Amino acid sequence: MKVFSVIGITDSGKTTTIEHIIKELKKRNYSVGTVKHIHFHGFKMDVEGTNTDRHKKAGSSLVTARGEYETDILFQEKLSINEILNFYNHDFVILEGARDTCAPKIVTAHDEEAIEERLDETSFAVSGRIADTINEYKGLPAISAVKDIEKLVNLIEEKVFDRLPDMKDECCKKCGYTCKELCSLILKGKAERGDCILDEQKVVLKINGKAIKMVPFVQKVLFNSVESIVKELEGYNENGDIEICIRK
Amino acid sequence: MKVFSVIGITDSGKTTTIEHIIKELKKRNYSVGTVKHIHFHGFKMDVEGTNTDRHKKAGSSLVTARGEYETDILFQEKLSINEILNFYNHDFVILEGARDTCAPKIVTAHDEEAIEERLDETSFAVSGRIADTINEYKGLPAISAVKDIEKLVNLIEEKVFDRLPDMKDECCKKCGYTCKELCSLILKGKAERGDCILDEQKVVLKINGKAIKMVPFVQKVLFNSVESIVKELEGYNENGDIEICIRK
Repeated sequence: MKVFSVIGITDSGKTTTIEHIIKELKKRNYSVGTVKHIHFHGFKMDVEGTNTDRHKKAGSSLVTARGEYETDILFQEKLSINEILNFYNHDFVILEGARDTCAPKIVTAHDEEAIEERLDETSFAVSGRIADTINEYKGLPAISAVKDIEKLVNLIEEKVFDRLPDMKDECCKKCGYTCKELCSLILKGKAERGDCILDEQKVVLKINGKAIKMVPFVQKVLFNSVESIVKELEGYNENGDIEICIRK
Repeated sequence: MKVFSVIGITDSGKTTTIEHIIKELKKRNYSVGTVKHIHFHGFKMDVEGTNTDRHKKAGSSLVTARGEYETDILFQEKLSINEILNFYNHDFVILEGARDTCAPKIVTAHDEEAIEERLDETSFAVSGRIADTINEYKGLPAISAVKDIEKLVNLIEEKVFDRLPDMKDECCKKCGYTCKELCSLILKGKAERGDCILDEQKVVLKINGKAIKMVPFVQKVLFNSVESIVKELEGYNENGDIEICIRK
């Protein structure tokens, strides 16, 4: 699953840019999901006086509205990007306004000062209103989603890679870098997605609590065998971690 | 996790009953979550013209609104009760208006005809407006949530049990009954929650930390498949418990 974020200050063209990207990705037959990060502190989606709002006010800490064609799960907390992405199973997921992620980023802006406010090592393109007047900024291509969507989505296809685990810095760095640093190096062509060490040990097997070493080939055989069965079960999630315990 | 449903025709007092139950359960220090089933076909929670609505209209098939104190995940489909309950981890979950579940049910009504419209083998109490005028109906206690909430919640504590797996009838019946039939027998004191054969499972599967129920046949398939591979590995022990973790 490829994940990237479109960030930029208010009125820089984030949502318009994302609308054009979604449509072009769909045209290219990708499945697309999105996450909108809302900075407004008072945000809530439900409306005063609905039955679901009454549940919440009475003390229900997780409320779901289940309609015939829509199911809305209203968590009363800010979930992390990783927690949210666990619900997704798409070719591309676009984050709007999310900066607390190591995912590659497009910065939208209406002037150069606004670019500077958001630019960091994980940026790979500039877009939004500024892209009407410049073609590049500090080595990054500036491409308008309104005028040149094909070029912008070509760049997305080229640059965005399968999401990194976004581990906390203190938890991993097994490849020698934080996830953000590795993202930056991949975007610059100085590292590869495969350098993430966590990919090499996807399958861990223990017998009576003792780890059994498996060469990658056996890991794959075990993985494929388990996956082929569990994927048919209700509750399966393509991106979900799988745990199996067999008691003898 | 104990799950029950409050069902009843429109204007029979479902939401009011649930509000009182939530408050009393919270007073007794239980954690409570709720699911509102919405029969109105045109239901959607999001509002025309919001950024999240623009994402959806552009073609995003799963949209999340992530605020500072709330995260709303908007699935564009009707999820099953089991799929929804996978998001919950509460002492009690109350379903409003959900009939496609084997969970025990309270029927709310304003007259006896309205009770009959919803009554089935999984009902364990009557409530709503009719409970102002009758004390029981066909052997089921009729208790008003407004006037006698303690008595109603005492009954809920007594009757509602850890949720049954709600397997499709054709998938299990290993205990001799469908989940709905077993629920009915438990409520009548003619069976026990422990009679559900799936609780004995030797093979436990979790995806993203959430337990996935498997009928004995599927448990066996998964067990045989795993065993056939790991028994060839150095360190295998015929009587050893097996743990497998697959990180995606």
